Amino acid sequence: MHAAATDPDPTICHPFLPREAVVREVGLRDGLQSIAMVLPTAHKLDWLRQAHAAGQREIEVGSFVPARLLPQLADTEEVLAFAKTLPGLFASVLVPNLKGAERALACGADLMMVPLSASHAHSLANLRKTPDEVVAEVARMRAARDASGARTLIDGGVGTAFGCTLQGEVRESEVLRLMQGLLDAGADRVSLADTVGYADPAMVRSLFEKALRIAGDRLWCGHFHDTRGLGLANAYAALEVGVTRFDACIAGIGGCPHAPGASGNVATEDLLFMLESMGVATGVDLHALLQLRARVASWLDGQTLHGTLWRAGLPKTFAPAPVAARAVAESQDR
Amino acid sequence: MHAAATDPDPTICHPFLPREAVVREVGLRDGLQSIAMVLPTAHKLDWLRQAHAAGQREIEVGSFVPARLLPQLADTEEVLAFAKTLPGLFASVLVPNLKGAERALACGADLMMVPLSASHAHSLANLRKTPDEVVAEVARMRAARDASGARTLIDGGVGTAFGCTLQGEVRESEVLRLMQGLLDAGADRVSLADTVGYADPAMVRSLFEKALRIAGDRLWCGHFHDTRGLGLANAYAALEVGVTRFDACIAGIGGCPHAPGASGNVATEDLLFMLESMGVATGVDLHALLQLRARVASWLDGQTLHGTLWRAGLPKTFAPAPVAARAVAESQDR
Repeated sequence: MHAAATDPDPTICHPFLPREAVVREVGLRDGLQSIAMVLPTAHKLDWLRQAHAAGQREIEVGSFVPARLLPQLADTEEVLAFAKTLPGLFASVLVPNLKGAERALACGADLMMVPLSASHAHSLANLRKTPDEVVAEVARMRAARDASGARTLIDGGVGTAFGCTLQGEVRESEVLRLMQGLLDAGADRVSLADTVGYADPAMVRSLFEKALRIAGDRLWCGHFHDTRGLGLANAYAALEVGVTRFDACIAGIGGCPHAPGASGNVATEDLLFMLESMGVATGVDLHALLQLRARVASWLDGQTLHGTLWRAGLPKTFAPAPVAARAVAESQDR
Repeated sequence: MHAAATDPDPTICHPFLPREAVVREVGLRDGLQSIAMVLPTAHKLDWLRQAHAAGQREIEVGSFVPARLLPQLADTEEVLAFAKTLPGLFASVLVPNLKGAERALACGADLMMVPLSASHAHSLANLRKTPDEVVAEVARMRAARDASGARTLIDGGVGTAFGCTLQGEVRESEVLRLMQGLLDAGADRVSLADTVGYADPAMVRSLFEKALRIAGDRLWCGHFHDTRGLGLANAYAALEVGVTRFDACIAGIGGCPHAPGASGNVATEDLLFMLESMGVATGVDLHALLQLRARVASWLDGQTLHGTLWRAGLPKTFAPAPVAARAVAESQDR
């Protein structure tokens, strides 16, 4: 006996969740920079083409850092130029400093992400600047952007926002102070990252609730690592408080430099599955994405890959979330 | 510059979460029944001793099923007898039918879990009974328990509660109808299980909210599989609506018979880490639990194991949740 009238309509998104979310692919940047092998440019272009065909519309294509530091990303200019030919693709790059920002502006990146580490120790070790020096650099980038007439958005990405392997605790108040500083310095967007996999869902909920009160629509993205298995739980906790954009790497590529063999970024396909399964539309065709995953895995033969969906497959009951309107960056106020 | 006054006290559990939760170890039953090798009884007793020393107080020690069907669990009577010698340990067993229940009563199990599959197809294939025939069997078990004078609790465990690899969809209303049926038949407790890893956090929240309204304190346990990476996100979603008891297998042992190589039950150590990290007290010493995990892994050499914490290690900032009062079964109304 079924009492059908009491069952919710499975095609309706749950009322406590957003109707749409964006999964930003960062495998070409955050993933590839963390593995030793250099993926040929032709493969990167294939990857972009196939990701775009699967419905991905926001992709971080590389970094404007010196090629001697990250030879894996030395072809960022070429990859970005190709990304700009794909209709509706919103292409971002990482820039560590004003020089990188000038390259991003010259190349017409849609967004440049400026990493800041809320951990003082991590900031000095990785960026050779204090967090406040990075804030000051963002002010100079903003001036350069405005002078150039380019439409490139500036995203201040606050890393080690939930703790740090060097320093240990990172206080919420310090993260929020730096985030406010980035906005005051002229960042168009701010993001929060659990760089080392220290976050738990309660921390995520607490920090993102406060961050959303400060930044509103300017809060861009949540970046979660799966180092201790909590990546998806953390993304869910952020989604519950209203975060609708997440970074992820296909096949969880990149791993974690602090924990050999452990996962790095959340796997794109697993995050998309969680969202679509809950009725949160992403605009991405998961079947096509799983084909891309297999392709990327073949290119990265010998690297440790992650993720679970590729092995278990989609549930028999899986149905993609109905797409009402794509929450892609291009449609937003710029 | 730190604004310490605005930071929450990290020793206080977040107000939207329960202060305590119990992780029931089911590796000795659900884990071992799903792998071919037979773990020697002496190892099982060592496992129990070390789990108890680490603070685990609820353990499913085996099944009263015919030894020819599950030779891995043929020593359940001996393992249960040993479990009963460990102070404060609440020992449960799985019983598939009245005959198994009579053995559990005779051996003085603290709880017997009766599996019911909400999927009609899965029920016929696995239990050779319809779900309603299992409900009727629970009524007979209740009569036997009451006649025996034993204090063994009866837990009706509704499996395939979120979908089924055979049947596909399983309706919420059918799960709730069967859960109500189990309570009416005399089950002291009811539990819900995502047997095949089809659940997502939104489904979990929806079903457990309704189940808690029906069963209240008699809702015993959430049983989540990590087949598609959502095990911990699902546990978090259940915790948010008030579920405080979860099944888990150390090292995620057992895997998934429907997806070779995929994870089975949530890994005990990862779930404990998530809870303790959020300030939800479990009473378990994670360092000791990770030592036990290494020991179990050495016994199961060659089996596919799962979980992430053992590889990444605890964060530098990790502090166990303060234990106010243990939410162990023994303290509950029986």
